[in-house]
Amino acid sequence: MKSGLSFLVAARQCEIGELEQLALTSELVSVIGRLIHALQRERGMSNVFLGSQGTRFGDPRRQQVAECEQVEQRVREHFDTLDTDASRVRNGARLFSRIAFVLHALDGLPALRQRIGAQALPPEEASAAFVRLIAGLLSVVFEAVDSATDPDISRALVAMFNFMQGKEFAGQERAFGAASFASGHTDLARQQQWRHLIESQERCFEVFADFSERPVLDAWHASQQDGGLAELERLRRIGCAPSTDGALDANLSQAWYEGCTRRIDAMKLLEDQLAVHLRGLCRRKIAQARTELRDQQAILETLSREAGAAGPGTPAHYGPQLERSILGMVQEQAHRLQAMSDELETVRAALDERKLVERAKGLLMARRRLGEDEAYKMLRQTAMNQNRRLVDVARAVLAMADYL
Amino acid sequence: MKSGLSFLVAARQCEIGELEQLALTSELVSVIGRLIHALQRERGMSNVFLGSQGTRFGDPRRQQVAECEQVEQRVREHFDTLDTDASRVRNGARLFSRIAFVLHALDGLPALRQRIGAQALPPEEASAAFVRLIAGLLSVVFEAVDSATDPDISRALVAMFNFMQGKEFAGQERAFGAASFASGHTDLARQQQWRHLIESQERCFEVFADFSERPVLDAWHASQQDGGLAELERLRRIGCAPSTDGALDANLSQAWYEGCTRRIDAMKLLEDQLAVHLRGLCRRKIAQARTELRDQQAILETLSREAGAAGPGTPAHYGPQLERSILGMVQEQAHRLQAMSDELETVRAALDERKLVERAKGLLMARRRLGEDEAYKMLRQTAMNQNRRLVDVARAVLAMADYL
Repeated sequence: MKSGLSFLVAARQCEIGELEQLALTSELVSVIGRLIHALQRERGMSNVFLGSQGTRFGDPRRQQVAECEQVEQRVREHFDTLDTDASRVRNGARLFSRIAFVLHALDGLPALRQRIGAQALPPEEASAAFVRLIAGLLSVVFEAVDSATDPDISRALVAMFNFMQGKEFAGQERAFGAASFASGHTDLARQQQWRHLIESQERCFEVFADFSERPVLDAWHASQQDGGLAELERLRRIGCAPSTDGALDANLSQAWYEGCTRRIDAMKLLEDQLAVHLRGLCRRKIAQARTELRDQQAILETLSREAGAAGPGTPAHYGPQLERSILGMVQEQAHRLQAMSDELETVRAALDERKLVERAKGLLMARRRLGEDEAYKMLRQTAMNQNRRLVDVARAVLAMADYL
Repeated sequence: MKSGLSFLVAARQCEIGELEQLALTSELVSVIGRLIHALQRERGMSNVFLGSQGTRFGDPRRQQVAECEQVEQRVREHFDTLDTDASRVRNGARLFSRIAFVLHALDGLPALRQRIGAQALPPEEASAAFVRLIAGLLSVVFEAVDSATDPDISRALVAMFNFMQGKEFAGQERAFGAASFASGHTDLARQQQWRHLIESQERCFEVFADFSERPVLDAWHASQQDGGLAELERLRRIGCAPSTDGALDANLSQAWYEGCTRRIDAMKLLEDQLAVHLRGLCRRKIAQARTELRDQQAILETLSREAGAAGPGTPAHYGPQLERSILGMVQEQAHRLQAMSDELETVRAALDERKLVERAKGLLMARRRLGEDEAYKMLRQTAMNQNRRLVDVARAVLAMADYL
């Protein structure tokens, strides 16, 4: 029959198991980040390719497709290593269901690429398909982040997720701005949507900054300068500030596209740093937990020896002093776990915004029989019209659920 | 390489795995409920035995100890069946750490009983030891409830936990009232503490009622009438309402004790019904999930057949119509899981009160170097003095954390 002390050890082993799971999750997040970056490049090139009637980016696009296929293979291999048989993976049902969506979308990529190559669809449609796939990949990352049980790793994952999401908004802004400039004119609705993309990405980078430490933040600010943010801000001002006639210089399209690309590539370098940081953090945490487990086991062995050689299966009889030190260990562990889970809850509150938006979207889909994209657009349009944050609109929608 | 469809199935299998885990958890909760009830009886009898200088309840107490030992054995067997090797158990670290505390306290029971039998300790001290052990058992139940991933089962477990906790407050009230009557007098502090025990249990039963359905509620109200609540309310009025001289009729002690015991025994019957309900719910949910999995697998097989015999390992090529129905299944599953986890979050909010109190307690222990009991007493005293609910005091303490 198991003793209290064996459960003390089991609790610690559970912690280690969860950390090891988190290390795998972190690897998955990193490799998904690589695929998202590759797909973002392919999306941008496909846009220009289609917009220029196939005259620009023909070869680079083909090379980028090859690159994407390679990284996709890595992601699929990672999915394969996930232990789908056991219920070992926390949050498994939701994670796997998001992965099912992603794999379905990846299976559709060859057909999409064929149509792009044959210039058989408008750039917006091609872009939308990539946006959906990347959103699906980010959902996988989000579920992985949502399953973290260690507050420090959760903090790093929250920062990473928001960075990735912000980078994706930057990618969408690149496409949107390039198309706006290329078309030679803009209007109020376009300007509003452009500003919304800027605000969405800034909100993500704020959360990222809140959950990052000094060195990372310094690297972030430096990378923004290297990325030529000042020049981009000038082009943003031209492109999305109200103007009298709505005319845009189509020649700026290329400068905008290239400027954005430099900035996004700089982001990718920082994302790689975040991944390295995350990997190191997991490794250190696992090593520390293993050391603590060994120390604990050593103490317990000493205690058992001092308690005398009670036969196996009989409850040990410790003296009152040993009793107290065992009780101390038990209580110390319970309080440490309690403190960890309190801290975790605080960190996880940062995930609530996205959950609220998802929930409001789901409500609109169910009550108004809308598709996912339509529901999101409706929320976004309200936010833009009322000049409110998306999450505030989502909260209002949920509060008014009975009226819908 | 795994396909999107296999992850669709894996997500469903995860759900089933989690439900099976919950069924085991529910069994554990039931058997812990039996042990708590047996210990509550032993605590009451030990109190009377010690209070009467060993003249009353000598034999019944010995019988009750035998009963306790039998149920304790059942609980230990259940602990043994928990899979401590894998990180399969959700929330494992915290659950096991609580179990470690309980086993440590159970190991100390024989020595405690010996001292009670020899009348070598005051009734309050004996009572406090049982209160601590029962609180530990309730913590195990709480962690089990906190790990539930299905909203319906979570709802039933929240109801069950609050019922068990309310019943424990009723047990403490039995002891407190019996001692007050037996002493022949009362004062303001005692009356205040008595009222606090009544309010604490009423709060638990409110939450229990909020999370229960009509038939259970009807059974609850009926059991309260059978339990002779009216007579108890009369004795409560005598015992804890302000009186001029503070004198109490010591002869009422026995009537009070017996009345409370009838009420608590009636509660146990209802708790057994809750356990049966919970077991049935788990069984139905598992059966339903298995049926749905089978249906899903049948559809997927049909789809694969219609898609033609692509060799193993090659991605299947479905026609556009099949594509759409697969996408529909993937999205339907994602939305269902999303809706479930939204509902779960709403249900789990009911657990926040206890978490806040635990967190405030932990804060006081750390900042003021108090023991667990002292920290709780401090919170309770403030609540009584300021006539506020415990959870509101806890919230205030946490908000003032920086000042402590």
